[in-house]
Amino acid sequence: MPAPRRYAFGRVDEATHPDSIRATLAEFISTLIFVFAGEGSSLALDKIYKDAGSSAGELIVSSLAHAFSLFAAISASINVSGGHVNPAVTFGALLGGRISVLRALYYWVAQLLGAIVASLLLRLCTNGMRPDAFHVSYGVGEAHGLVLEIVLTFGLMYTVYATAIDPKRGSLGTIAPLAIALIVGANILVGGPFDGASMNPARAFGPALVGWRWDNHWIYWLGPFLGAGLAGLIYEYMVIPTETPVTHQPLAPEDY
Amino acid sequence: MPAPRRYAFGRVDEATHPDSIRATLAEFISTLIFVFAGEGSSLALDKIYKDAGSSAGELIVSSLAHAFSLFAAISASINVSGGHVNPAVTFGALLGGRISVLRALYYWVAQLLGAIVASLLLRLCTNGMRPDAFHVSYGVGEAHGLVLEIVLTFGLMYTVYATAIDPKRGSLGTIAPLAIALIVGANILVGGPFDGASMNPARAFGPALVGWRWDNHWIYWLGPFLGAGLAGLIYEYMVIPTETPVTHQPLAPEDY
Amino acid sequence: MPAPRRYAFGRVDEATHPDSIRATLAEFISTLIFVFAGEGSSLALDKIYKDAGSSAGELIVSSLAHAFSLFAAISASINVSGGHVNPAVTFGALLGGRISVLRALYYWVAQLLGAIVASLLLRLCTNGMRPDAFHVSYGVGEAHGLVLEIVLTFGLMYTVYATAIDPKRGSLGTIAPLAIALIVGANILVGGPFDGASMNPARAFGPALVGWRWDNHWIYWLGPFLGAGLAGLIYEYMVIPTETPVTHQPLAPEDY
Amino acid sequence: MPAPRRYAFGRVDEATHPDSIRATLAEFISTLIFVFAGEGSSLALDKIYKDAGSSAGELIVSSLAHAFSLFAAISASINVSGGHVNPAVTFGALLGGRISVLRALYYWVAQLLGAIVASLLLRLCTNGMRPDAFHVSYGVGEAHGLVLEIVLTFGLMYTVYATAIDPKRGSLGTIAPLAIALIVGANILVGGPFDGASMNPARAFGPALVGWRWDNHWIYWLGPFLGAGLAGLIYEYMVIPTETPVTHQPLAPEDY
Repeated sequence: MPAPRRYAFGRVDEATHPDSIRATLAEFISTLIFVFAGEGSSLALDKIYKDAGSSAGELIVSSLAHAFSLFAAISASINVSGGHVNPAVTFGALLGGRISVLRALYYWVAQLLGAIVASLLLRLCTNGMRPDAFHVSYGVGEAHGLVLEIVLTFGLMYTVYATAIDPKRGSLGTIAPLAIALIVGANILVGGPFDGASMNPARAFGPALVGWRWDNHWIYWLGPFLGAGLAGLIYEYMVIPTETPVTHQPLAPEDY
Repeated sequence: MPAPRRYAFGRVDEATHPDSIRATLAEFISTLIFVFAGEGSSLALDKIYKDAGSSAGELIVSSLAHAFSLFAAISASINVSGGHVNPAVTFGALLGGRISVLRALYYWVAQLLGAIVASLLLRLCTNGMRPDAFHVSYGVGEAHGLVLEIVLTFGLMYTVYATAIDPKRGSLGTIAPLAIALIVGANILVGGPFDGASMNPARAFGPALVGWRWDNHWIYWLGPFLGAGLAGLIYEYMVIPTETPVTHQPLAPEDY
Repeated sequence: MPAPRRYAFGRVDEATHPDSIRATLAEFISTLIFVFAGEGSSLALDKIYKDAGSSAGELIVSSLAHAFSLFAAISASINVSGGHVNPAVTFGALLGGRISVLRALYYWVAQLLGAIVASLLLRLCTNGMRPDAFHVSYGVGEAHGLVLEIVLTFGLMYTVYATAIDPKRGSLGTIAPLAIALIVGANILVGGPFDGASMNPARAFGPALVGWRWDNHWIYWLGPFLGAGLAGLIYEYMVIPTETPVTHQPLAPEDY
Repeated sequence: MPAPRRYAFGRVDEATHPDSIRATLAEFISTLIFVFAGEGSSLALDKIYKDAGSSAGELIVSSLAHAFSLFAAISASINVSGGHVNPAVTFGALLGGRISVLRALYYWVAQLLGAIVASLLLRLCTNGMRPDAFHVSYGVGEAHGLVLEIVLTFGLMYTVYATAIDPKRGSLGTIAPLAIALIVGANILVGGPFDGASMNPARAFGPALVGWRWDNHWIYWLGPFLGAGLAGLIYEYMVIPTETPVTHQPLAPEDY
């Protein structure tokens, strides 16, 4: 039997409980910090180069900007909100029964708002530069981009579940924010030249709205939700042991 | 009700207490190490290139040099002084009521001295190279640079507060120095081509003094102080729960 | 006397025990995530450049893609399967008596399947790009490549043993996944231009099969197995203390 | 009163005690792993470029190769030998009274042997490439290089002392290997273009011997020993509190 879905429908008082409000605020600010750095690094490259985005060095800049800022953003909110900073992660946690529908709705609004405010602030700081948006590259179809977003986000959500949600994670939780951040960094080094490697609908939506660029936008919603949902279900129902004896042994792989 | 400002005015014996002196010494040495690496990486690029600072590779060098050295500098002083290594962080902690005015003054002097000595040592080691200083880029106004420093430092201070000051941070404290260092690294990848991304008045002041370059210097004081102050107030009064039940959570330095 | 080889022959019920099945599933998924990122970064560079693989920037992309994704892959499976993600690591643990033959067989199948599925998914996402495979560079003989793989994998397995298997590792286990991932990242910066620096037969096999490229393939099996086996034996029988008094002191280097 | 120098002269049975032998073996292997990666990355760049060493990308390769491998090397030996992997660090610990003269001698021999074997293996793997050695750059005098090595190694040893030796380091010890490794990575980004930024006599000696290149070699011994010695004395006698009440509270900065 899987872990009980304690939060599947939310508690009556959850909407106005101070914890919910603080958690929502934390998601808003952390997503703002992350999107500001992620999208900002793209504009920084636009500032340096006429034709940005087509070299190993630029790929590394994008990877590190996202990984480093996501690590800080998750660390800063993991104790308050769980450190989702990503609507797809919230969706995976919802499918796995680890968060209520009500709280998920709160988080989604906060994450999207954070991404929008970050994009607006970037426009202000950069003297009006128009934000870039994700799109598939020349020679890559929307179907390819969709599958790529599914696979990349699957890896991300699987890591989130194993290191930050699994009740048996033990002291692994200490490095959860880093593991999550670095799989995003690695995946950008893969998907960057093909479809930008978003893995995060808020990261895609904010700049798309402020820059008003909507080409291929739908795959950056559907792909991450499918990948994260699949990972949440697999981890929750196949990897988490059904019998969970109460132990106090942190980190001990017993059958080593 | 917020956490009591027990140290808002300092204790009578604080000025001469050995702990205060050791903490001040730790801030001096850690800031020296950080500024030596940060400013030194800029001179290293000047040594390699005639026209340094305008490529993805150079941006990465600057980001990693600051992030890696800041991580070591914070780790080396967090248990002794709290690991500020940045006058703006000290200011944010002061506004949040987490440090006394007297101690903040000590830290500020130590941080500025550390930055100056680091800049002088760099001049010595490099056979007299003149330190670079932060300034806004062509096409970026001082107002844009100011807003940018505010936003970047807000993200930094918010991370500091959440991971290193929040009394409920728990085992998150273990990775606090890394989270703080990496948000600085990420933010340099954003702000570097626009205004250099200082986020730290000591980092800006030491090289400016030794290199005697003062263009736009004021924004590297006002911006970080505004951003850090805002983050300190928001985290202290909106994110930290007002009701704090007494727990036995390990890692809690209760009187932070 | 070395640690008893409790699992050298497997338990009768191990083949069908839920823990074994979950562990095997975890190895499959983690290896998939790792190989997708590692091989995918190679294809990403092929997408950017006509003649990929011959610059410092590309070397860094490969190093970070492997290190970052391996860190997440190990973190996501270390509590379930021990986080091998590499047939050579499984072999080293087997020689050291830390895993049963039966479980090793399970892991090997899962790791190879994960690598194959990752390579197939990459072919799908990239609109049919043919995976690259490891081979020795111009001017490097197979014997040189073999020795290189032995030395590189020795360093990897020695790190695995010291940080993730040694029963006296204490709180070092928290950073084990990062130490293992980063030695792989460092070793790629060494071996990359000579033989690609695989250190992992699954990483080599999946793309070789899907791309059908078999030049020099044998050295990417023999080298890692020899290096990991040697490290396992040395650590198990020479570094792990024979007398292990029961203590509760984590991390204390007593004779410092 | 400083901490008692309990090990200043060694115990009678220390020379043949199994712990000493294992610790010496651990220093040998860890230094081998570190020097193989550090020097190997230099040869890898020689393999790619005709005129290696003069770009931001190459600087980053060198920084990451040293930082990543040093992190693994320290992690793999910190519980067994203290994770010095550097004769200068051993010297700093000796001056601070944290290691006996006899053990320091053992470590020095092991570290130098590890560096020599690593250099020989590199020569074998690379089909006979001649190892590079550290030297000051054009326009930089030996005196400048000496001061640079002093300052860089001071920062390294100060970090070692604060995070890995200080008896009050608490849970900071968990990230000690990373802090030490990353200050080395940062410092290479500073010193690389000026004098190579060795900070480690074993790292300098092995390749110099095998490649038989001795220009400026003395500054890579004197500089690190002076810098590490100074940091050891300052931290031991000025930063570590003289009155150390016996407490069981890890990590508590009491006077915050």
